[in-house]
This record gives sequence, C-alpha cells and structure tokens, in this order.
Amino acid sequence: MKEFFDVIDIDEVLVLKEQFEIVGAGRAPLDDLLGRFLAEDVVADRDIPGFDRSTMDGYAVSAGSTYGASEANPAYLNVVGSVGMGQVPAHGVGPGEASRIATGGMLPQGADSVVMVEHAAAVDDTTIEVYHSVAPGQHVVAKDEDAADGEVMLRSGCRLRAQEIGLLAALGLPTVKAFDFPRVGIISTGDEVVPVDADPRPGQVRDVNAYTLAALIRQAGGRPIRYGIVKDQYDALLEVCRRALAETDMVLVSGGSSVGTRDLTVEVLAALDESAILVHGVSISPGKPTILARCGAKAFWGLPGHVTSAMVVFMVLVRPFLIHIGGGAAEAPVRLRARLSRNVASSQGRVDFVRVRLAGREGEMWAEPVLGASGLIRTMVAADGLVAVDMNSEGLDKGAEVDVLLF
Amino acid sequence: MKEFFDVIDIDEVLVLKEQFEIVGAGRAPLDDLLGRFLAEDVVADRDIPGFDRSTMDGYAVSAGSTYGASEANPAYLNVVGSVGMGQVPAHGVGPGEASRIATGGMLPQGADSVVMVEHAAAVDDTTIEVYHSVAPGQHVVAKDEDAADGEVMLRSGCRLRAQEIGLLAALGLPTVKAFDFPRVGIISTGDEVVPVDADPRPGQVRDVNAYTLAALIRQAGGRPIRYGIVKDQYDALLEVCRRALAETDMVLVSGGSSVGTRDLTVEVLAALDESAILVHGVSISPGKPTILARCGAKAFWGLPGHVTSAMVVFMVLVRPFLIHIGGGAAEAPVRLRARLSRNVASSQGRVDFVRVRLAGREGEMWAEPVLGASGLIRTMVAADGLVAVDMNSEGLDKGAEVDVLLF
Repeated sequence: MKEFFDVIDIDEVLVLKEQFEIVGAGRAPLDDLLGRFLAEDVVADRDIPGFDRSTMDGYAVSAGSTYGASEANPAYLNVVGSVGMGQVPAHGVGPGEASRIATGGMLPQGADSVVMVEHAAAVDDTTIEVYHSVAPGQHVVAKDEDAADGEVMLRSGCRLRAQEIGLLAALGLPTVKAFDFPRVGIISTGDEVVPVDADPRPGQVRDVNAYTLAALIRQAGGRPIRYGIVKDQYDALLEVCRRALAETDMVLVSGGSSVGTRDLTVEVLAALDESAILVHGVSISPGKPTILARCGAKAFWGLPGHVTSAMVVFMVLVRPFLIHIGGGAAEAPVRLRARLSRNVASSQGRVDFVRVRLAGREGEMWAEPVLGASGLIRTMVAADGLVAVDMNSEGLDKGAEVDVLLF
Repeated sequence: MKEFFDVIDIDEVLVLKEQFEIVGAGRAPLDDLLGRFLAEDVVADRDIPGFDRSTMDGYAVSAGSTYGASEANPAYLNVVGSVGMGQVPAHGVGPGEASRIATGGMLPQGADSVVMVEHAAAVDDTTIEVYHSVAPGQHVVAKDEDAADGEVMLRSGCRLRAQEIGLLAALGLPTVKAFDFPRVGIISTGDEVVPVDADPRPGQVRDVNAYTLAALIRQAGGRPIRYGIVKDQYDALLEVCRRALAETDMVLVSGGSSVGTRDLTVEVLAALDESAILVHGVSISPGKPTILARCGAKAFWGLPGHVTSAMVVFMVLVRPFLIHIGGGAAEAPVRLRARLSRNVASSQGRVDFVRVRLAGREGEMWAEPVLGASGLIRTMVAADGLVAVDMNSEGLDKGAEVDVLLF
C-alpha cells in the first residue's frame, strides 16, 4: 500500500468550477422561484409606484403652507377633499389648502408632502390646525422611487428571496426566466453498505450518506436523484455511473473511503467517456480523499465514505460547484463571527474543519468545539457549523475570533 | 382622527404564542423531513455502529504490540489476515500480530487500535514494521460511540437538518413522526390593491405582500394558501376571513395600513367566533399598526400594508408563532455580528429595525445601513438583514458592534 494522493488546496479546486456547464433555464411562476437563480436581467417597464404616494395617514399639502407652523403658532388650512384609496383625486390642493389622505393614497395635484394625522387637529369640518412644518417630499414615496421606467432592477444570476419575488410582483411579472434546479445523482458504494430498512449484520453499516447528501443538495437548490447502493465491482459501478451521468447534471459517488474503493472509483472514472480526473486528494481534514473528474461538461465527485467527511466536502467544495452550474452568481460568503471557547489543535499543511456549537453568553457568541471522532454523525447533530483552521496554523487559542460556516 | 393604539413591546407579544395550538403530526419518510420538526423522541434500539470500526486504512493491532515503536526502532508484526469490507473477520489478532484493515472495516477479536498505513511498511508478505506506537482505541470508533442501545438521540421539537436525517437513517428509521407543515392563509385587503397581472391605474398598486409573505412562510416551514384580494367591505372581508380560519392553522390579513382598513379589520375580527384581540399596536418601526387576535385556538394577524413593514413584522413576530404552532422547540436565535458602517438615528420608546447590507472588508464584517423610505421594496432587495436599535437608544454610532438578523 502507498500514499498516492497528489493533494491540492481548496482554492485550486474551487477555480475549476468554471469548467462546468450551467443548466438550462425556463419561465417559472412567482410561487416556484424561492431560492432559485434568475436567468435574465429584469428591467422596469414603468415607474413604480407610478404616482406620488403617501406613507402616512394625514393631510396632503404643499409644504410651503406649513412653514413656520408650531404648537404655539399653528398653520390653519382649508380641507378641500379626501383621497379615496386606489382613486385619482378629483381635486387639487393649493396654497393654504389640505386634503385628507390615508397611507398608500395618491397625492392630489399641487400637494408635495403629507402632514401626519398626529401633527394636526380639526378646528371645524373644513379647517385644520397644523403644529409641525413638513419639507417637500416628506412622508411621500415619489412616483419612480421604487423603480424608474427602464431601470435594471435585478441581474441574471441573482438568488431569488422573498423580497426579489415581491419586486417581480410589483413589476407585474407573474413569470420570469429562472435557471432549472440542477439534478444531482447520488451513488452509494461499498461492500459494507446496506439499505436503511435493512438489518445490518456485524461489519455492515446503513446507507446514511444517501440521505444527508440528498438533504444538502435540496438546501443548496438542487434536486437529488438516488441510484442506490452499488457493490465494489467494476462493471456494476461503471454501469450505474454511466446512467447517472446521462440522467443528471452532476454526480456524487459516496463511500469508497477505503483505498480499494477509491482505486475502483478512479478506474471507473477513467473508463467513462470524455473523462479527465482533475482532483485526486484535497488538503482538508476531514475530506482529504476527495476526487473530482470532468465527464464531458459534467462534474463527477468521489466523496469520502464517512458521513461527516462527506458533509464537510459537500459544504466546502461541492456546494459552490452546484451553485455555479445552477446559474448562481458567486456569492460573498456570510460568516458568523464567534469566539472560540477552548484551544483547538490542528495540523499544518491542511485546512482543518472543526465542528462547533454556538452559544450566546455574556453578550458574546461563543463557538464551542464538539468533541468526538470525526466519523461520528452525533458530532454533526450536536454542531451548528464549521470553523476552518488555516493551513499555516498549528491551532487556534481559546478566545480567538473565528468565522463559523453555518449548516 | 385620533391615535388609538395601546402599543405593547415585542417581548409581550412573543409570550402570547403559548396560547396557540400546535398542529397535528404524522409519519413521514426521510426524504420529506428537511426543515420539519420531530414529533417524537427518537431512541436507539441498538448500538451504532454496532462493531468496533476502523477510521483509517492500515493494520488492526493490539496497542501493546506497538509500544516503544519508532523510526529508529520499529516493531515487527506478523500479518495474520485481511478484513473484508462488511465482513466479520474469521481471524483474531494476538500480541505481535496485525491484520490488514480498510477504513470502515470491523476490528478482529483481540485488536483494539489501528496503525495508519503511512506509519508501517511491508518487510515481506507476512511481516510489517511499525514506526509509531498507537494507544488503545486509536483510529477506532467504538461499537456504541455513535449511539448506545436505549439512548435518546433526538428530542421531539428538534428541527430536522441534513445530519438529523442522516442519524435517523443510521438508526434504521425510514419514517418518523413529524409535525405537519402549518397551513397559513394570506388575505390581501385594500381598495387600491390589484392583482399582479393587472395593469394598475394611477393610485393603484399590485398585490406584492401576497408573494413576499408566501415566500417567508415557506422559508419558515409553513404552507401558504392565498385567498386573493378583498375590497375594504365588511361583509366581503368577514366571509373570506371565516373561510381562511376554517381551512388553515393561522391567518395573515395584509394591507390595511390606512386607518379605515385597520378599523375594518378590527371590526371583522370582533365579529368572528370566539375571537379576542390580544395586540393592537406594537412598539416597533416599521410595523407599529400590527394586530393579533385569537380566534378559537388559531392566531389571526393584521399586518401593515407596506411590503417592508409586513416583512419586518413577519420576521420578528409572526415567524416565532409559526415555528411554535409547527411544533418547533424555541430556538436560540443565531446572530451575525457585524460593525455598523455609519451612524444610525432612532427614536426612543420603540425598537427600530434598520435594513443593512453586509460587506466584508479588512477582515471585518460590516453592516451598511440601506438608505431609502421604509416603504420601498428596493431597500429590502439591497439588504441582507435587519439590525434592531433598542427602545432606550437614540441611535447607534458608526463602528458599533451590532447583531444582524439575516433574511
């Protein structure tokens, strides 16, 4: 036996994602867009809201009519009408005049601002006194303030959250062009792996990766397709890999943390059409025995068999590829800052990913390393995220500020 | 017109969630569990992995056989066999002996540790030299280390992520009892509101809230059901509210940011069976004109009409209620720490929620307040989360450490 890895760094792996093809796109309704990526630029075809709109209940006025108004010296204004919701006011508002208006109402001609109802009082049916002056534009959303006709509002590749979907609704787009959910094939290998509903004999383990990976794929915006458990046999594995490649946009072979299975996976990858092995070992822990191949325009991953290693590799490496082929623009990673609750040892020459639990104490967020062997899924259940310990570090000290990658 | 709110604090609203009934539960398959809440305690019915398992490729040994071994003075061991994956080894390992083993393999009788392949070399077909000593248990997961027979592994109310689903698979549970997705009715009101595919006349706006709220409900683990747009008419609104209450677990009436519609919503709520208005105004901004009623065992919310106000109220108030009725245990909120990029003014006596954009600069995470009127959805599109400015604060200074509630 020998150590045959030609290990490369995380960043060297990540740049390879540009080699892979982005999935197709199609029109989708607003209710089917959450978490997907936009496949076209969205341009406003008119001003939004399209009219000067009150943001308060009160009185629409020309600001000049209120200048100098105060509690001691109120301005007296004639009430000339009331704005109906959803209506174009039939009346205008001149100097010394006011119109009743509700939040969301359209400002009458001549009005440029709104006096809050709390800052005015009725003197009689047609007169109010105003205690505070307003500036032009105060308590008003201008007709093109949310979107101006012709303005690019969203760019292709942006991830659609609740607010982007709301903006599309505001723009009157019941459907938009969005990238399809990438289909990701999952193949479990290993002579020791049995289905979840089987009763494992001593030496056997249930197929956990097929379920953790499926959930991670869903969270990342993909659609998992499972191809079951394949024994460590060349012909069987080659056949299933061929089928998965034909039917999906990316394939994950999980299992094969033993040298024998790794060799087999590499052999099968080499036999696939237009295949090239790009990565064979990554300088991370857990997750070193990771394989990445290109088969035509598709990515094919060999993930470690340990459930925790496979999850870490997915989060750190596979997920950015999945977002890329799903049409997503590169996202600046959101890092949760916390303070390490105790010392963590680490090896130089690789990035160590430590599982941590988050706990708020004394106004601070603490990252508490979860103890236990790296292969234990219970350590992942106890954890909220991962902390990376840099290649050039021999460890981190208690109290150090760290960035937590959340599950 | 008068100010009729009897405003209460966020915390006073949140404690009310205990008044509402939790939804039903049923058995669900592993593939249908992501993001749901467990409705039973899960107990291991056997040890997992169930056998002492190697975490490395190498040689299974009795640790004592390696004591004192070093590069200069290796230990010489007899190789007595090889462990097949998924097999119970037929051979044992005595003192001075070793067995080939791959990652995931079952330790033979007599072995208590594994020498990594990198720390040994073959001398001939049946002899190896070992350069590093190992301690008992090293590179081995003990038979009950991931789960011990009878141990409670997951508690009812826990949110099911990829790792919890993996643990259920490891435990051999293809289905578990999980709480149903709460159904949440969405009713849009307002004489000025028109459907998304309509061409709004001046003074009218498209129904944005129905889409932003549906997306937020989905993200929080609920199932949105839309009841369309209802004009500001008592009979029409009452009829739709009754229907939504009968068909769902929680109802959101959105719109009604004008006094007239608010009054109407309150009137309708009072007319519903077994109804009581619990909250009529909350000391937050945006979102002050929020209404919460109890109708039987169900929560009925009146949300502000401004899309941004409705979103903030959903995130801060409605979401915790939705998680509660969905069977979720109270979660410690995850707070992302950042530094404020500029001063933010605020009013005392209410909690102000400021939209912020996150930006990493110079190894720090910065929260940059997004400018623009509170009613503008473009300010939400530009933002990554919210920062709360406390009731007793007149604002926050540039450089202050703040906690960001992420969208």
